[in-house]
Amino acid sequence: MSASLFSTHRPILDAALSAIHDRRFHAQWPEMPSPKIYGDTAQADGEAAFRALLGKRFEGLGEESGTPWHGSEESPYGFPLGITYPAPPVDALLRRAEAARGSWAALSPADRAGLLTEALVASAKQFFPIAYATMHTTGQGFLMAFQASGPHAWDRALEAVALGYEELTRFASAATWEKPVGKAVVTLRKNYRVVGRGTGLVIGCSTFPVWNSFPGIFADLVTGNPVIVKPHPGAVLPLAIAVAELRRVFAAHGAPEDAVQLAVDGESLIAKELAEHPGIAIIDYTGNSAFGEYLERLPGKTVFTEKAGVNAAILDSVDALDPVLENLAFSLSLYSGQMCTTPQNVFIPRAGVRSAEGWVPYEDVVRRLIEKIDGIAGNEKVGPGTFGAVQHPATLERISTAAQLPCRVLRASAPVAQPGFAQARSVSPLLLEVLPGQAEVYQREMFGPIVFIIPTSGTDESLALARDSAARAGAITFALWSVDEDVIARVEDAMMAAGAPVSVNLTGPIWVNQAAAFSDFHVTAGNPAGNASLVNPEFIVRRFFVAGSRRKEKDA
Amino acid sequence: MSASLFSTHRPILDAALSAIHDRRFHAQWPEMPSPKIYGDTAQADGEAAFRALLGKRFEGLGEESGTPWHGSEESPYGFPLGITYPAPPVDALLRRAEAARGSWAALSPADRAGLLTEALVASAKQFFPIAYATMHTTGQGFLMAFQASGPHAWDRALEAVALGYEELTRFASAATWEKPVGKAVVTLRKNYRVVGRGTGLVIGCSTFPVWNSFPGIFADLVTGNPVIVKPHPGAVLPLAIAVAELRRVFAAHGAPEDAVQLAVDGESLIAKELAEHPGIAIIDYTGNSAFGEYLERLPGKTVFTEKAGVNAAILDSVDALDPVLENLAFSLSLYSGQMCTTPQNVFIPRAGVRSAEGWVPYEDVVRRLIEKIDGIAGNEKVGPGTFGAVQHPATLERISTAAQLPCRVLRASAPVAQPGFAQARSVSPLLLEVLPGQAEVYQREMFGPIVFIIPTSGTDESLALARDSAARAGAITFALWSVDEDVIARVEDAMMAAGAPVSVNLTGPIWVNQAAAFSDFHVTAGNPAGNASLVNPEFIVRRFFVAGSRRKEKDA
Repeated sequence: MSASLFSTHRPILDAALSAIHDRRFHAQWPEMPSPKIYGDTAQADGEAAFRALLGKRFEGLGEESGTPWHGSEESPYGFPLGITYPAPPVDALLRRAEAARGSWAALSPADRAGLLTEALVASAKQFFPIAYATMHTTGQGFLMAFQASGPHAWDRALEAVALGYEELTRFASAATWEKPVGKAVVTLRKNYRVVGRGTGLVIGCSTFPVWNSFPGIFADLVTGNPVIVKPHPGAVLPLAIAVAELRRVFAAHGAPEDAVQLAVDGESLIAKELAEHPGIAIIDYTGNSAFGEYLERLPGKTVFTEKAGVNAAILDSVDALDPVLENLAFSLSLYSGQMCTTPQNVFIPRAGVRSAEGWVPYEDVVRRLIEKIDGIAGNEKVGPGTFGAVQHPATLERISTAAQLPCRVLRASAPVAQPGFAQARSVSPLLLEVLPGQAEVYQREMFGPIVFIIPTSGTDESLALARDSAARAGAITFALWSVDEDVIARVEDAMMAAGAPVSVNLTGPIWVNQAAAFSDFHVTAGNPAGNASLVNPEFIVRRFFVAGSRRKEKDA
Repeated sequence: MSASLFSTHRPILDAALSAIHDRRFHAQWPEMPSPKIYGDTAQADGEAAFRALLGKRFEGLGEESGTPWHGSEESPYGFPLGITYPAPPVDALLRRAEAARGSWAALSPADRAGLLTEALVASAKQFFPIAYATMHTTGQGFLMAFQASGPHAWDRALEAVALGYEELTRFASAATWEKPVGKAVVTLRKNYRVVGRGTGLVIGCSTFPVWNSFPGIFADLVTGNPVIVKPHPGAVLPLAIAVAELRRVFAAHGAPEDAVQLAVDGESLIAKELAEHPGIAIIDYTGNSAFGEYLERLPGKTVFTEKAGVNAAILDSVDALDPVLENLAFSLSLYSGQMCTTPQNVFIPRAGVRSAEGWVPYEDVVRRLIEKIDGIAGNEKVGPGTFGAVQHPATLERISTAAQLPCRVLRASAPVAQPGFAQARSVSPLLLEVLPGQAEVYQREMFGPIVFIIPTSGTDESLALARDSAARAGAITFALWSVDEDVIARVEDAMMAAGAPVSVNLTGPIWVNQAAAFSDFHVTAGNPAGNASLVNPEFIVRRFFVAGSRRKEKDA
């Protein structure tokens, strides 16, 4: 079966690899949830499928009789999901993973790559149910939920599968080694075997449960390792649907379904117990820095992290100011700043911003930026979907606390009405003016719709502060607007050295928040924001080792 | 200059890369110290050059006035070297590395690969002086010293340079990214920059100072990182000569000579101070497990280790026994068991070994193995060079302690005369019979010429013990002799899964101790013997990260 899956999907893998190498635009799955692409009833069917899961046991995850069921998800749009999931003990999960390991590892790299591509293609039919599941666990607006937990996540998973296949097959797996020794030749027949490091654990986050978990899941699987997926207790459903689909495809093709399992928190949280279990060899994690650093220090584990960062934007000079501020306002508003890629600190020269219309004073820049945000908040068609809802109540508390900081409030956070969801936890961003000297305020992550506007003595100071913060506190993105080539070159040098990917002069429908599969490495692994970069060779090759066997040919 | 160096050396790099990919035999530098290859006076000149260094300050390492000088090397052949080296404080080394970093990193991957290949080609002229320096610090016999600190080390370094060049240039460094958005297209111009993680530290060992250090040194350099080389205080000279040569070549081509520096221990040992210095980003280490594990746990560092292991050999069945025992006896004798690749535990069925001449009883196998070792020890032409001398007096003490273990002494260790060196610390191997149940005796490393012969109930028990020991205590090599295909397959499965490279049925001039550049991955990184594998992609890619910059093209 598998050999034919590999040939069937070879064009998909080849196109992915070609994009990975040339870094050009590529998308295997269209990002628009359009009826023309996905079918006239796809969205309604998907919502119905999601609704049908509410209040029930989620089945199809290999549950055994006697397994306890747990679940406590609530939609940020204001209702409990009421879904429970099988919650077997950690030892049972590890035992089943170990039992699946042999036959999973015995598949050839081509077999695994073919089967995993098939699993992606087949499970893409669940984009719409997963989108609603994502919306009602993370609080994302529908469009973002569809894209982030659907085509964009699938593309990133395909990237891991394709690069995994390449890494596993990059060197000869057999060789005849002939060494001249004096007038004779010593001949050895050599074989090289890829050995997966062992069962992987992927710990998901509450805001991007699928997008941030899929690369690790597929990287583990393609390199021959079973994987246990432990979602955040607040965002289980999107991964439960995905894992059930993968298991179904594996079983249909005679592969061990326990190569991928779902682990859920029960009475107590199990991430630590799982991570420290001697049966876990590889850990992928997205979440807060404290737990990430604890994981990175676990001895004998291969650990990939994406932790917190403090992203900056620098306004230096522009052609036209409005398109720039529109772009920035949207970046600050999207999913209420709950993206690891959202800018937090916006540095603007106190002397104002040079533009084709002349110098725009600082106060005017700020006023016009606020107007753009107000424009989104006041637009009933665009606003609710842009902001989405706030995933965790603690984020609302953080906004209240931030509003009490010794800073000038430039724009207050205000409730946003989400049509159809009267109880939705949805707000617009808080903007505060912070002085460069108040490093203790802005040089740390303030997760959520909290933006610091920092007036500086000029772009030199903006850059020094942004660079220091990236190097010390981490950064996952960085945005610059400048028409000055020297400034651009200087900023690139400093920020790239500090491990921050740089976006320059974005306007229109492309935002600093976005990282494109096959082209953008998400997180550089070059600063404290994380030690993993999606999807680079290191993300793959640390999951396996190669053992060689060499054998002397009988002398002729 | 550099562009032309890259084109000059492109054939060398291409041949290396081709071997790396197909894993066939390749050697850039001939391994025999033959006058026909290296010149009639090369050996005598090399010895003279070595002798001229004795008792003096070693100059040419960028020493500054006021720098203290230190050195305490003694030849295991029985005389002090009396050489001192400049020993600047750790902070000064780091400051100079940091000062060199910018211009070193600014070289393109091709420039660095070209310059480093030139440095290898030019410094290969020092093979003979380095061979004598190695002989009289490590105790290796001359031939091994020549090969291990000369052509074999240079090949391994070239492997790192070539693979480094490939990894750095594997993905496009620029792209035009065109994303269809509705009927429009968003165009971003993208650039990707390789950023070295920072100054590297390479901590050498006392037995293979050059071979084990060169891959890390050249991997750091090719990926844009300056490197500080900290040899073992007992084996400084071979690396001092090499580092001085590299600095000379860098300077001659306008590159910063401080991209590579030598650090030596003074009044106190400086490895810890260096390793913990915030300026050190990458560490390569060969040595004992305790210090290696301490290094692996240092937060925020990228650490590559080769630590201790317990290597096993299993005798199952043979065609002819004598060639097998000759091969094994040589492996056990070579450099008096001071190789990380030497077998320590030899498992032999108590029922004997099946051979074409019939079953050979266990006692006869052991007796004939001892005869082979005695043959080497008694051969005045071959013996002294094969055994070499014992690097550290503690190894002699370990032999005495081992002889007191509650085990049957099969062969006593005895002094070996080294012609011309009456005071040489040279001995032949101790062979002890240990029972399978005495795990506390043989399941740990006993460094030096100490061999445990373990009679087992059969190959199943041999395999179970060898596999457990590899998985728990680490193993860098493993040797099997068997004519049974089922046994070979079973042993390969178990030992490769435990991270031990497997050598099968070696006879003649090829030994389990040898790992060939371009073909054999030295250490799998799949068991506690080390986390680095020479030279695989992971050994390269963890030394740098990639930061991207993307810029919106002005709308047309």
